[in-house]
Order: sequence, then structure tokens, then C-alpha cells
Amino acid sequence: MATERRRIVTFGEAMIRLTPPGHERIERTRSLDVTSGGAELNVAVGLTCLGWPASWVSVLPESPLGRLVLRDARTAGVDVSTVVVTPDAFGRTGVYFLETAADPRPSAIQYDRADSAFSRVEPGMLDWPRLLDGAAGLHLSGITPAVSQRCREEAMTALRAANVARVPVFFDLNYRSKLWTEHEARACFVEMAPLVDVMFASRGGLATFFGITGGHAEVLATACERLGMAACALTRKKGKASRSMRLQAIGARADGSVVETGWRELEIVDRVGGGDAFAAGFIAGYLEEPADLTLALELGLAASALKHTTPGDFLCATRSEVEAAMVAGEGGALLR
Amino acid sequence: MATERRRIVTFGEAMIRLTPPGHERIERTRSLDVTSGGAELNVAVGLTCLGWPASWVSVLPESPLGRLVLRDARTAGVDVSTVVVTPDAFGRTGVYFLETAADPRPSAIQYDRADSAFSRVEPGMLDWPRLLDGAAGLHLSGITPAVSQRCREEAMTALRAANVARVPVFFDLNYRSKLWTEHEARACFVEMAPLVDVMFASRGGLATFFGITGGHAEVLATACERLGMAACALTRKKGKASRSMRLQAIGARADGSVVETGWRELEIVDRVGGGDAFAAGFIAGYLEEPADLTLALELGLAASALKHTTPGDFLCATRSEVEAAMVAGEGGALLR
Amino acid sequence: MATERRRIVTFGEAMIRLTPPGHERIERTRSLDVTSGGAELNVAVGLTCLGWPASWVSVLPESPLGRLVLRDARTAGVDVSTVVVTPDAFGRTGVYFLETAADPRPSAIQYDRADSAFSRVEPGMLDWPRLLDGAAGLHLSGITPAVSQRCREEAMTALRAANVARVPVFFDLNYRSKLWTEHEARACFVEMAPLVDVMFASRGGLATFFGITGGHAEVLATACERLGMAACALTRKKGKASRSMRLQAIGARADGSVVETGWRELEIVDRVGGGDAFAAGFIAGYLEEPADLTLALELGLAASALKHTTPGDFLCATRSEVEAAMVAGEGGALLR
Amino acid sequence: MATERRRIVTFGEAMIRLTPPGHERIERTRSLDVTSGGAELNVAVGLTCLGWPASWVSVLPESPLGRLVLRDARTAGVDVSTVVVTPDAFGRTGVYFLETAADPRPSAIQYDRADSAFSRVEPGMLDWPRLLDGAAGLHLSGITPAVSQRCREEAMTALRAANVARVPVFFDLNYRSKLWTEHEARACFVEMAPLVDVMFASRGGLATFFGITGGHAEVLATACERLGMAACALTRKKGKASRSMRLQAIGARADGSVVETGWRELEIVDRVGGGDAFAAGFIAGYLEEPADLTLALELGLAASALKHTTPGDFLCATRSEVEAAMVAGEGGALLR
Amino acid sequence: MATERRRIVTFGEAMIRLTPPGHERIERTRSLDVTSGGAELNVAVGLTCLGWPASWVSVLPESPLGRLVLRDARTAGVDVSTVVVTPDAFGRTGVYFLETAADPRPSAIQYDRADSAFSRVEPGMLDWPRLLDGAAGLHLSGITPAVSQRCREEAMTALRAANVARVPVFFDLNYRSKLWTEHEARACFVEMAPLVDVMFASRGGLATFFGITGGHAEVLATACERLGMAACALTRKKGKASRSMRLQAIGARADGSVVETGWRELEIVDRVGGGDAFAAGFIAGYLEEPADLTLALELGLAASALKHTTPGDFLCATRSEVEAAMVAGEGGALLR
Amino acid sequence: MATERRRIVTFGEAMIRLTPPGHERIERTRSLDVTSGGAELNVAVGLTCLGWPASWVSVLPESPLGRLVLRDARTAGVDVSTVVVTPDAFGRTGVYFLETAADPRPSAIQYDRADSAFSRVEPGMLDWPRLLDGAAGLHLSGITPAVSQRCREEAMTALRAANVARVPVFFDLNYRSKLWTEHEARACFVEMAPLVDVMFASRGGLATFFGITGGHAEVLATACERLGMAACALTRKKGKASRSMRLQAIGARADGSVVETGWRELEIVDRVGGGDAFAAGFIAGYLEEPADLTLALELGLAASALKHTTPGDFLCATRSEVEAAMVAGEGGALLR
Repeated sequence: MATERRRIVTFGEAMIRLTPPGHERIERTRSLDVTSGGAELNVAVGLTCLGWPASWVSVLPESPLGRLVLRDARTAGVDVSTVVVTPDAFGRTGVYFLETAADPRPSAIQYDRADSAFSRVEPGMLDWPRLLDGAAGLHLSGITPAVSQRCREEAMTALRAANVARVPVFFDLNYRSKLWTEHEARACFVEMAPLVDVMFASRGGLATFFGITGGHAEVLATACERLGMAACALTRKKGKASRSMRLQAIGARADGSVVETGWRELEIVDRVGGGDAFAAGFIAGYLEEPADLTLALELGLAASALKHTTPGDFLCATRSEVEAAMVAGEGGALLR
Repeated sequence: MATERRRIVTFGEAMIRLTPPGHERIERTRSLDVTSGGAELNVAVGLTCLGWPASWVSVLPESPLGRLVLRDARTAGVDVSTVVVTPDAFGRTGVYFLETAADPRPSAIQYDRADSAFSRVEPGMLDWPRLLDGAAGLHLSGITPAVSQRCREEAMTALRAANVARVPVFFDLNYRSKLWTEHEARACFVEMAPLVDVMFASRGGLATFFGITGGHAEVLATACERLGMAACALTRKKGKASRSMRLQAIGARADGSVVETGWRELEIVDRVGGGDAFAAGFIAGYLEEPADLTLALELGLAASALKHTTPGDFLCATRSEVEAAMVAGEGGALLR
Repeated sequence: MATERRRIVTFGEAMIRLTPPGHERIERTRSLDVTSGGAELNVAVGLTCLGWPASWVSVLPESPLGRLVLRDARTAGVDVSTVVVTPDAFGRTGVYFLETAADPRPSAIQYDRADSAFSRVEPGMLDWPRLLDGAAGLHLSGITPAVSQRCREEAMTALRAANVARVPVFFDLNYRSKLWTEHEARACFVEMAPLVDVMFASRGGLATFFGITGGHAEVLATACERLGMAACALTRKKGKASRSMRLQAIGARADGSVVETGWRELEIVDRVGGGDAFAAGFIAGYLEEPADLTLALELGLAASALKHTTPGDFLCATRSEVEAAMVAGEGGALLR
Repeated sequence: MATERRRIVTFGEAMIRLTPPGHERIERTRSLDVTSGGAELNVAVGLTCLGWPASWVSVLPESPLGRLVLRDARTAGVDVSTVVVTPDAFGRTGVYFLETAADPRPSAIQYDRADSAFSRVEPGMLDWPRLLDGAAGLHLSGITPAVSQRCREEAMTALRAANVARVPVFFDLNYRSKLWTEHEARACFVEMAPLVDVMFASRGGLATFFGITGGHAEVLATACERLGMAACALTRKKGKASRSMRLQAIGARADGSVVETGWRELEIVDRVGGGDAFAAGFIAGYLEEPADLTLALELGLAASALKHTTPGDFLCATRSEVEAAMVAGEGGALLR
Repeated sequence: MATERRRIVTFGEAMIRLTPPGHERIERTRSLDVTSGGAELNVAVGLTCLGWPASWVSVLPESPLGRLVLRDARTAGVDVSTVVVTPDAFGRTGVYFLETAADPRPSAIQYDRADSAFSRVEPGMLDWPRLLDGAAGLHLSGITPAVSQRCREEAMTALRAANVARVPVFFDLNYRSKLWTEHEARACFVEMAPLVDVMFASRGGLATFFGITGGHAEVLATACERLGMAACALTRKKGKASRSMRLQAIGARADGSVVETGWRELEIVDRVGGGDAFAAGFIAGYLEEPADLTLALELGLAASALKHTTPGDFLCATRSEVEAAMVAGEGGALLR
Repeated sequence: MATERRRIVTFGEAMIRLTPPGHERIERTRSLDVTSGGAELNVAVGLTCLGWPASWVSVLPESPLGRLVLRDARTAGVDVSTVVVTPDAFGRTGVYFLETAADPRPSAIQYDRADSAFSRVEPGMLDWPRLLDGAAGLHLSGITPAVSQRCREEAMTALRAANVARVPVFFDLNYRSKLWTEHEARACFVEMAPLVDVMFASRGGLATFFGITGGHAEVLATACERLGMAACALTRKKGKASRSMRLQAIGARADGSVVETGWRELEIVDRVGGGDAFAAGFIAGYLEEPADLTLALELGLAASALKHTTPGDFLCATRSEVEAAMVAGEGGALLR
């Protein structure tokens, strides 16, 4: 690419993910696969895959478990100089246990994230003006403010700092019912929305938190208009099988224009992080071609599709692999 | 649940199951996954999952292999105080090797169960009046009498004792051609049928052993009438893929009423024990609501569907998970 | 079978195959599964499964890696007395890394085969008249001449020796773009074709290298006529999923007759070696019943289908299992 | 043995243990082995191995992780009807991460047990008079009161109830510096000691908490006298290698008599739980032959030695295997 | 080597060996490692490693388990054209379970070998004159006649045929107390001894079965003299640890000469098959230099030492590696 | 520490390391553990553990295998902005296979590193003045110039640039006989020595390449004097077992002073990289306290000891863990 890309900053918690191998149930497993993940770290990893430098802002304890997450972020090429490492006693490293679905058994996630170091972030710990200096964007999801009251306040601080620094804000309207109530989330999201430039939101989320109803395309366009955002995007899924599904992406811009991709078939190896890979692809495409959402949606869709085909929360693909997947799925093809 | 549930007694052999991981063939594998299984133990485990206490009556040698099976039964919460442990020299622990199918390669089971301690059960070893005292039901399958002449006699002893004690008898009309001939099986099943209250039977089984032919619903109703049973049930499968299929349950009662569930799609991780999980669910539902087979069939179908989604012979799910699966498959949903 | 079968000779390179388990990507894996493979060795293994003695002619270094491949060939029952073992310094053992596909991510193969001992085969190292003495056939693929100039010359030597010895030549028109250009391949294939009796070729291959175009059946018949071959065959695939597909086989004979099998559904555990298993089945069937391609095609199709259901490059099935798969796929059936 | 053995009650927390395989470090591992453990559960398991029925009193949440621990306890044959299962929201399941030592790298344990359901045990939750009814003994360690203030109070309740019911109290003077200070522990241990009949204590522990100093035998005898206990025992270790060591047991009785076993060489596969297996062996031997500590010490030493030879916190050996190990180590002997 | 080596024939049963990984106990394992082994097959494999062609005479069923053993023998380069493959119903494939020792826990072997196809060998099934035609030696152990009465008779037939054909007989005086009594074994061994040329025997074995007592060297010399043998050899072990030991070899010849090697330290990864590797090395060395036992003993000792350093029953080393180990152990040296 | 530490630059090739698990032999393994390693990368990783920023200068291809190595370096915190990534066709990623020793079987390394991208480094590819700008030191080993003629030239370029920039040069006198002859190495080392400030060298190496003979301390002192170096250090090993050994470090300075550490016992999990960890510890200690070698030697010895206790080439320990290991080995202690 011709010009130097400026780094994108993401802000959120990451946890250690423990997964029983081979569809085993947690209560019966004798082994757990270990990876790391968290919505905003996943997005940072995805951006790095796509050639955009990404800095992950977070808090982790000085402990083997904290180092594990830090190492995984570093492995993927994410800048972790922006992670605050606190003494072990300050707070835990969050953990989550994941069971792999097989219809009619859903994927079940057991969070064990209370009292994490991240949840105890303190005012002043993160120097947002410096963190955002020269950044091309700031991304966080609705999970960050849900983690704790301190996190909610810190998220607001980050958004305001981004607005001041004229750094575009990307926000994924994730709602985690185990962390807070709809009522609490609504109050927060309504406060945040005016500070957001681009939102990732499901039709259900827009209805629940902003009272915006209608068809998929319609709600996106309405959201842009009502919430004063430059763009809004979502993905739709078809199929309830755990091993394959169909995926489509739709996006709207402030001018009311709407773009829809075709539906694409994909095989699922691991579905966690699929939405984050979409966000990463969208952000990259949006920053590269802001005038037309086609690149953003197609890059997001391809990144999400590829994410589904490998284990773990992180996208693991090169830019050229994502671009190849945009054009045409190779299916079970054997490249040799 | 409001009332204390009385325990259900099952009687049969369990074996160590050895499975090559990852679709490998037995002759080429360098590793075997170890679990335990056996039709009647599987049913006892399923009942325990569903909140019914279950006692498993069997014979195992005092040896590491015998203890392995005993431990697995105990892990699942099954009462094993009813297992007779014999000296190591009395007989072996049965073993079976299982290859996982991929169309057009069938799942292949290699039994190595000759001369097991169970096959050598001796008259008087099992005190049936005491074992059945206060029981809510007795369950066994057509495999138990097929194991050996002694087992056939012991099975008859058990059925007669149940009839005397007015304990309802559940019987799964399984036929194992590697253990005896159709001729031998027919003589036995015909002798047993009058002592049975509820039978699980395929259309093929009813035709082969009792000469009852017709459509699925028809043969069940006819079986109830001709064999003097309170109820009869079966499951139907569609699809020859090894990774997914469709399943339906049908049941008939002595009054000629027939209930059919809808077809449900399910994904297969391990199909062994699927029929036993159905039996467990049906027995639980039947004992809870004997006047209408709907609960029995739906509980059986959901238990069977969930059994297919995890490795090993045993159902591993809570009552609430089975009930959730009755209502609606979550598909590849991610619960968080 | 009544008569003693004469051995079939195959000639080509085999490599160590390293596969990340569980859909993991190469750059992220912490473990690699180890098997051996190579088109002509795969065919020799398939023939052995089908009851035909097979000798594999190749070159391997005296080293742990060379011995690994040699052991795997021997395990499968292939005659390896025809392998020349060279000093370790003569050349390497080729290696290839394989990623397992999930749509839209293709299976990716990374070859690391340069400077292999095989590629450095020297004139006179292989005594073709002796190697082919009494053989029922010689098989090689388009990969063998692509490996190096020396290999190309040795392949020609082998074909000429087979023609002299009146040993029928089977040739798989594989093209590997990483090893040579279309231009180079065309020159070679055109030189080889007159020496070939039976060719396995895709429609694309016949068009690219021989300018033969038309429908599938048509190009096979034309190829037989124009290239003066006794028979020509191909397989067609439908579906881009990585876990299942449909497969059909078509063959033509010099007399212009064409046979097509039905389409068969199959589940994919590992697709590498599927074409080689087809070749093995076809060769066996063709040598047993040369007057009619039906057995050859059906045996090839069943062998290929079964190959897809187990891990590794090699077919692992008995003749009777292949014949059972010819008749009817058992799907997810549970044989017990 | 001639008489029916009465059950022994143990009271304490158990956790899920996560161990990186193969000497890997936590921060670098991609897999964790899963077992369960906790001092008092370990003792209950050891007692069961030795033929003594054991009931484990504890608190676990209704969740997959809580069920995992419960299943493991049940597998080993421990009575878990005495475990209170609380709603998932009541508290967590404790977890600990264990690195396997290699000199000079110590085994490192990372506890993640804060806010466990056990730590939140509430007064009245455990009905001690009923739990101790007919029991042969009550065992707990110094970890139980260290977990939380509530646990400290509950432990005192248990000890007082045992004294009332004339159930002998066994106490392991374990001190965990990560859970409380020496000052806090001393206050508690001094309060508890008068209620204890038999104590397991290191020389360091007796010095720190009771100011008793002297040689090994001397401090044990002094402790019995000063603290008014029937017996006191410890084990001594020699060697700092992680793969083998020497072990000796010493015990004193209230009459001032002291028994010392010989030193025994043993190989270490997993050292966690070694002290608990000693306690289990000692308790069993002491209850069987209270007049002479020889059986108690030798059974304890053999049980501890065998515990060191298998993975996980739990002893896994039969009574006859422990008795064989008492007589003479078989070393690397091959029994066939 | 200058002259073509003639093949050595071994006769005995081989079984599938199932080993829990990581020092786990059988009753608790969830996985089993799969290898093959059997005294006489192990010797054949060892001979092949040392450059001597070896034919293994045995009986295996036509089944996946039978094929597994056959494949393993073939992999190692052993000639298996001498194995009789019987219909699956003729008899089982023997299995044994092995626990890895850690002092004071012994290695425990659980045999499950009753009713094997081998045990049912029938007169005439094995054509000994043809099998021994041109052979350099016949080897079997005391296990072969212990398997069954038929095996005992077949072993005598083999020995007599070897004597007739002037093929030297090597015999390992193994006694398996689980297969027969000392009384039965003595009768057999006394009958066999006159037909044996070279015996491998422990001091205990010579005392028990032949009443020969004295020091190690003394009993060997006496055995040669009394039993009319050309040579007799044994190995001595020191140390009861499971991870290392010291080993020495001693041999005597008919002329009364005795050779003793030095003691050599070795590390143990897997001790099963260590004696068979010694026999293989001794036989090779004896046939190459019959006039002096030094080569035989040193080759045997080095082969045995190397066998201890790798998993499974089989030696896996080249002749040059064994010869390097004869000269000097490299210890933990890193060859690069 | 008070002052900001300047980065240390290392220059050399890294490879993918493939290790059969569980003492298996390469030719028989079905699985390979994957790590990365290379003398100079290992040193960079060790320095990072010890709190010194380290930049690794190398060449890797743009391919999955190249990315694997790059990711591993990044994970450990090494600065890889100094790695030149070349097109895939430029050269391979080196690979080496490692067998784990058990006495008398040595660890065997099979290199497969010919034609690597690193070996083809071109003049001008690496901008040494910029790479060394502000560096605290440059480290490379005798392997770097041995890889290829181009590498030898590049190494000289680097050394000269370091001398110009007054960056101290650390050099490990490793000799790899598989890469070049002693004659070639001597010519190179003699040319390099005047440019080196601190050398790691064995007594054998100093004798072979510089003709310096005598006792350990003596040769180090002589080397400093004759070769004009500021310091020279080595480690001595005792013991040939693969699982434990004793280690001592000795160093001399230009002023003739010599420091020797005590001998320390250590357990071996993986010995590869032990020398590199020593170098890393020495360099860190030397740069922190250049006036006295005690810290350098003790830090090097502790780092090396810890490296031996974990799998893979890389040290994985924190500075505080290394310092704890300096004071006293914890042996098999259990820290909790």
C-alpha cells in the first residue's frame, strides 16, 4: 500500500480461554486447550492481519496468567506497549470456559472474570491523550463498559478523548446479560452513542437499546441518522448447524446509502471471534475507502469467514488470504 | 420435583470401549480413547442425568479393568452397590473397539467380550427380590440374554421377580447377530414378551421376532395389543451421513393411541448410546406422566439428540439441559 | 481369486507429510502429525489393499527421515526391495506441510522437496529391465518427470523399458505448477503419451496439454483415439465444502465406448490421495476385467471414497471393504 | 477385615487443578491437564482406597466446574451426599494452576480461589451433629480455617460438634501464607488445638505456632503433652531433586512413646497430595491399631510413597497394593 | 559385511500392548498407547536392526487387531510371510495392559491373552521343515510352550525339526507364572533342553528348573555341561529405580570358558523387551563370531541398553548405532 | 533498575525445531512437537527474560514457516523489526529434527537447513550502522559464519561495524562440524578474534582454533591476553546422564583475574539452548557489572540451569526467577 498506515487503538479486557477438546463437556474433560481472547484484542489482532498496526489498551496482572495473555497478543503482532501491567494482588486474569456446540447442544460459555485487574482500572492509569495521539481510530465494544463501573467510566473517558483528538470511534453494540441488565446497558449506550462514529449493531440491539425497529437495512440507516453516526453495519446468519452456516453483511452510511453483500456459505471450526473479525475487516476497509462501504463489508465478511475456519478467538490469515477469500471461496480446494 | 423418585434398576453387561481418535482405523492407530459402555449401564446413566436414581446390576472382576468400568458408572452417579465384584479369575472384563464412521465407511465395532465375568453369572449371585425391592422399574435389553445361556436364565429370573414384585419391566428389543442366531433370539424374546410392560422395538425387530408387520405406528399398536404391553416405542432415522441426521420418535399405548414427535435435525459427534439415551428419557417421562406418551417421547428424543452431541456411550447433560433441548434446538448458538 | 496376480510397479517420489492437527494453521501450530505420501507410493499402497502385489521404485536417503518413509511403505505391505537407498549426503528426504481446509479457506500445501535424493536419481541407478521383469503394469504420474531433469529422463527410460517389455503403462496426468511451467510439462507429456496405455486425466489437463476439448466423456474418447491409448479415465467432483462432496467416475476405451458411474455422496476426513486411490482401484479392476471398464471405475470410485474417510495419503481398507463400498455406502451405519 | 468400618468425615475445600503437561510453564502452555484436589478431599480418597468409607463435607456450586469436582470425588468412591450444592451465583469453584518442578525450578502453584462457594459457607448450612453421627473420625487441615472468616467459624463449629459427639479429631497443621498471616493462623490454631486428638505437624509448624522446639521426635512428644493430644506425627524428606527423594515417618503418643520408620527411597511423578495420603494411611492405621503407631506410620508412609508415583492429587491404589508397598518397594520390577 | 546372512526363524505369540501414558494407572486412564510385542517377535525385530534377516512364525486372526500386529512386524522389516492368518472366529488377538513403574510401584502387566489364535495352533498348520530350510537359527522362549498344550506340542515339533535340519536352537528360559505352574514348566523345559544349543537363563531359572545352583558364572558353565549346550548367557541388573539401572552380561561356553562384560549404567524409558534385545544381540554376535562370546555379549548388552531408551517392546536402532553404544555410552551427549 | 537499558543486537539464523514426543525415535514418530530456535535468537530471548531489550537480526522467508519463527521470536518479546523478510522463492526456512537422549542413546540432531533464506543473505540487505546505532552489544556465535560464505562475509561486516561504532562484541566459539571443516573455521575465527571483546569458548575450542592449551582457568586467561579480549568464559559439565548433571562456570578478564562458581546440580528437561542461556545471563551481568565477573557468571549459570528445566530452545523465566535460582536451587520444592 502506498501510504504509511496509522495505528488503530482498541480498548477492552482479554481473558484466558479454556476449551475442552473434541466436543467434550466441561464437567467431564481431562484436558483443556488454552488460547486468549477478548472482543477488542480480537479486533486488534484482525487489524494486524490486514496490515493495520494496532495498539491494544488493557490492564493485566504481573503473573503467569497475565503474561500468557500478553504473550498471545504480542505473538499476533499487536502493540502491547499500551497494556498496563499491575501487581499480582491488584486483580485477577479473567478466564472463560467454552464448550463447542453440536446441534441441539449450544456452545456454552462459563465466564470466571469477576475481580479482574481490568475491572479495577483506576482513573489516570491510562493516559488517553497520549494513547490516542496520531491514531487512525479507536475501537471498543459494549463489553468494556459492562465489566465494572470503573470500566464504564474509563470507556467514557476514552470516547471523549477520541472526540477531542478527532479520532474516529468504532463501537460494537455487544450486550452481555451476565454482566449487567438491559436497563444499565441502555443508559450507558445512550450516553455513548453521540460520541461514536461507526457502530456495529444487530437489529435486536438497535431495537432494545435505541428503540429503532424495521428491516435490517432500514434500522442501519435509521441508526446513522438518529444517532448521528457516519456508518453502521451488521452481519446476518442463516442456519442453526454448528458446522456450517450462511453469512451476509449489510452497512449503511449517514447519507442513507445502503450496501448488502451476497450470502456466503462457510464452514465453522470455531465461531468465537467471528464478529470481531468482521469488525476488524470493516474498520480496515472503511479507513481505506470511506466513501463506499463495499470494501469495508466485503473485507469484514471475508475476514469473518476465515476466522470461522480456524481454532481460537483470533483471525489468523494474511491480507492476501483475506482478499483471496473476498473474491471466491476455494471451498475444499487443495492448493498445490 | 415434588415427590421423591424411587430408583430404577437396570441389568446388563458393560464393557471398556476403545476408540481410535480422529477417524483412524483400528489396525493403524497408535492411541485409543478409553470410555465405558453397555446398553443397560447407559440407560442407568441417562436416568441419573434426568433426576431418577438408578441402580445398575452387573458382574465385574476385581481387576484394574473391572475397576475402570465401576469407576465410570460411579462417576456418573449411578448406584453400583448392586454390582457383584468377582475374583479376577472368575471371568474377564469385556472390551470393544469402535471405529468412527465417515460415509461410505460404516462405524465398525469389534467385540472382544467372550468369557466375561458377566457371562458367567451364577444362579443366586444376584438376589432379585432384594434388588427390586421398592424399585420404580426394571430395564434390560435383548443383549443381556444374548451374552450367554447363564445370562439368559438370569434375565428370566429377573423378569419373573419383577412381575412378582409388581415392578414394571422395560425391555429394549436389541438383537446382536454376533452373539446368537435369530432363531435363538426369537425363542427367548417370545418367552420374555409376556413379562414385559414397555418395549422399545424397531419395525424390523417386531417383524423378525414377532411377525408383526405394517407401518411404524401400526406395528407399535399391534405389538401392545398382541404382546399385552402397556406401551411400545421406537425412533426413526433419516440420512446416511455420519455427521448429522434426522430423528423422530413414535409411541403407542395399550389403548391403541399413538403419538408421533416431529422430525428433528441433529449433529452427530458419537452415535453409540443414542438409543439407550432415548430409552432413559422415555422411561423417565413415562413414569412421570404415564397417561400420555408425549412427555416420554419428547424427553427420550431430546436425551437421544443430546447424547449424539458428546463423545462416549453416556448421556452427559442435566435435566434442565434436556428440557431446553425438548423445546428448541439451539443449533450452533453461543450462550453467553 | 483363481490366478496368482503379478506385481505392479510404480515409480515416483514420496515425502514426509506434516499436518497441523485440528484445522490449525501451520504458522501457529505447536504439533504436527506425521505420515508419508507421494502419488505413486499411494497407488502402490492402494493396489496392495486390493490384493495386488506392488513394488515401489524410488530413491531415499539412509537417514531417519528416509527410514520413516521406507517403514511406512513397508507397513502397508508394499515391496520396497526396489527402493534405492543412497548415502545421507546424496540428497534430502522431501517434506510437505498440509493445512486442512474449511470453506472458504483452501487446503494449503507447502512443499519443501528441493534437492531430494529422488530428484538426483542417476542414470543406471535403476535397472528397469529387471525391475519390470514379469510386471503386470507400470504406473507413474506427471509429478515424477516434474521433479527434476534427471527424473524426467529416468521416467522416459522407464516408459521405454516398459514398452519393450510389453508391460502396460498407466499414467496420471498430474500437473504441479510449483515444479515446472505448463510449457515444460506439455513438451514432456507429449513425448510420453505415445508410450502410455492408460491415462488418468482431467478435462482441464487434456485441454491444456493436448488441446483436446469437449464434454467429459467426449474428451476421454478423443484422447484414446488421438493419443493411441487403450483407455482413459477421470473423476468429477461436485461441491466446495471441505467435509463432504459428490464424486463420479467416467472412462473411455479405444473402441470409443464410454462408461459413467453414478454420483456418490461421500464424507471427507482427508482428501489427499483420493485421486491415487482411484487410480489404484481402476488399475486393479482394469487388469482383472480389461474388456469392460465398469469394474475398474466402480473399484476406483469405491477405493477413492474410502480413502477420503481416513487420515493420511494412503488407502487403508481391505478388498472386501472396498467391494462392500462399491455396492452401497453404509453411511453412518453402525456395524455390530 | 472382620468388623464393619464406620465412615470418616473430612471437611474442606476442593478445587480444579490445571497442570501444563511436560514441564511446560503456565505462561507458555497450550494445554492444561485437569484433575481435582484439596487436602481434605485427598484424605477422603486415600481412606476409601484403604477400605475406610469416607464422607467429604464441602460446598460446591451448581455449575459445570462444580460438577467436575463432585464427579471426581464420586469416581474415587467418596460419599458426596454430604456436599452442599449452592446456586451458581453463590460462589465460584476454586481453581489452581500447578507447574511441575525440575531443579532448580520449584513447583509453582498459582491459586485462583477467592470468593469460592466454599469460602462463603453460611452458619447452619452444614448440620454437624447429623454429619458426624456414627463417624469414626473427623479430619481437617489448617487450610480450611484459612479460606475465610466464615470457614474459620465453621471449622470451630465442626470441631466442637465432634468433641460433643466423642468423634476423634484429626488435624493437619498446614499453613498457607497466601491465605492468611502467621499471626492469624496462630490465633486460630491455638484455639483449635485443645479440640484435636491427633495432629499432623512439621517441626517448623510446631515451632511457629506453638513455640515447641527440639528434635523431630522430641517436638512430637512435647506437642502431645502440651496440647493434650493422643498422638502426633510427621514425615521427613531428604533430597531436593524433583524426581526422587527419601521419606521417613515419625509418630509420638500421649504416653511419650515414639516410633520412627526407616527411610525409604521413592520416585516422584507428582508430589501434590503426598502429605494427604500420609494422613489417610495414618488415620486408617491408627483407627485399626490405636495402641501402637507402627501400623499407622507404615501405612501412611506406603500410601504417601504410592501417591508420589501417579499423577494428580489423589492416591490411586488398592489396600493390598499399599500393604505390598509397606513390606518392600518393588522398584522398577515388572510384575507378570 | 562380507557374506550374505541367512535368516533366523523365531516362533512365538505377539500381542497388542496397551499402555496408559504418563504413569497413569489402568483403572483411571482415558487413553492408551498402542504398540505390539511378544518375546519372539521382539527378538526378530532386534535381529533385523542388527542386519540379520528374521522370519517370525506365528498365528494371527484375519481382523483389524490381527492386522495391527502384522503391520507392526512388517514395519520393522521382519519377514511375516511365515505368519499363518486364520479366520477371525478361530481365535482372538492377545492383548496386554502395561502400567509404567515408579518406585515403590512396580510395573504391572495385565494379560488378556486367553483363547488367542496362536494358542489354538493346529498340528500341520506350520510346515517346519520348509520354515527352517536354510535358516541360520531358530529362537523361541519359555513363553511359547506355556501358552497352551497345543503350543507346547508345536514347540517340540519345531525343536525336533531344527535338530533334524541341523539348525542351531536358541532358547530363552522365560517362566510366566500366570500361564502354567513351575511343575508343568519344569517337565517341559527338561524335555526341551537336550534339543537346545544356546540358552538364555537367569540364575533363578537354572536353579528352579534344572537344580543348578552356584554363582552366576558357575551356573552358566554347569548348565552348558549338564544340559549339553554350546553356550549359555544371562544379564544381571542392579538398582530398583524405574528410571535407571546398571546391567552386566555373562556368558559361558561348552569348553567351560566364561566371559563377563563390565557393568554399564543405563537410563530407562521402557524396560519391556530389554531381555529380548539382549537375546537378539547375542544371537547375532554368536553367529558372527561363535568362537568367542565377547562380541555376542557386548552386542547383546548394547542392544538391550538401547532398547531401554525408547518406548515399546521393539529395539529401534541401526547396527551402527548399536556398535557405537558398545564402545561407549554417549550419555546425554548432543550429537550435532 | 535505575537506568534505561540499551538494546543488545544478536545476529544469526533460527530454525523450526521438530521433536518427537516421549523419547520416540524420528523414524518411528507419528507426531512432532514444534518450537523455534537458533543460537543467537535464543540469546536474544534470554536477554529479554533478564530485562534487557534485544533485537534479533536475521533473514526469513514470507511463508507460513517463516512466519512461525517470527511469531515465536515476537512472543518472547524480542524486537523483530530487524528481521528482513524475503520473498518465499529467495530461500527456505531451516528445520532441525531433535531426538531426546537417554543414556546410552545420545540426543541426535538432524539438520535440514541448506539453502535457507538466511544462508543467502546479500550484501547491503542489512544496514549495520543503523542496526547497531545505540546498541549496548552485538552477539553472534560461530554458527553464523559457518552457514554460508555469504554469512561469513556478513558476519565480518557486522563485527567491523560494531568496532567502528564502539559496540562491544560478544562471540560464542561454537563449531558445527556439519557446516564446515575445522580448517575453514579456524581461518574464520582467527580473522574474527581481534574484533571480539568477550568470548564464550570451551577448552577444546580454544585448543583447536587458537592452539591455547592448559587448565580451564588458564586457557581463559591466556585467551584474553593473546586475543586481546576483555573477558572470556566457559561452562563445565559433569555427568553423562540425560536427566541430570552438574554445571560450573568460569570466567577470566583481561587483567588475568579468574572467577569460578561452585558446581550446581540441575535436572534436565531439555538441554538445547543451555549454552545460549548462559551467554544471555553472562552478557546481562557483564553489562551491569563489568568490573567483576561474579554477577555475569552467576546470572549465566542460573539462566542456563533454568533453561534446562523447560522444553524448547528458549529460556522462559523472569528476572526475579533467575535471581532466585542464583541464590539457591529450590529443588523439588512446592511453592504455595
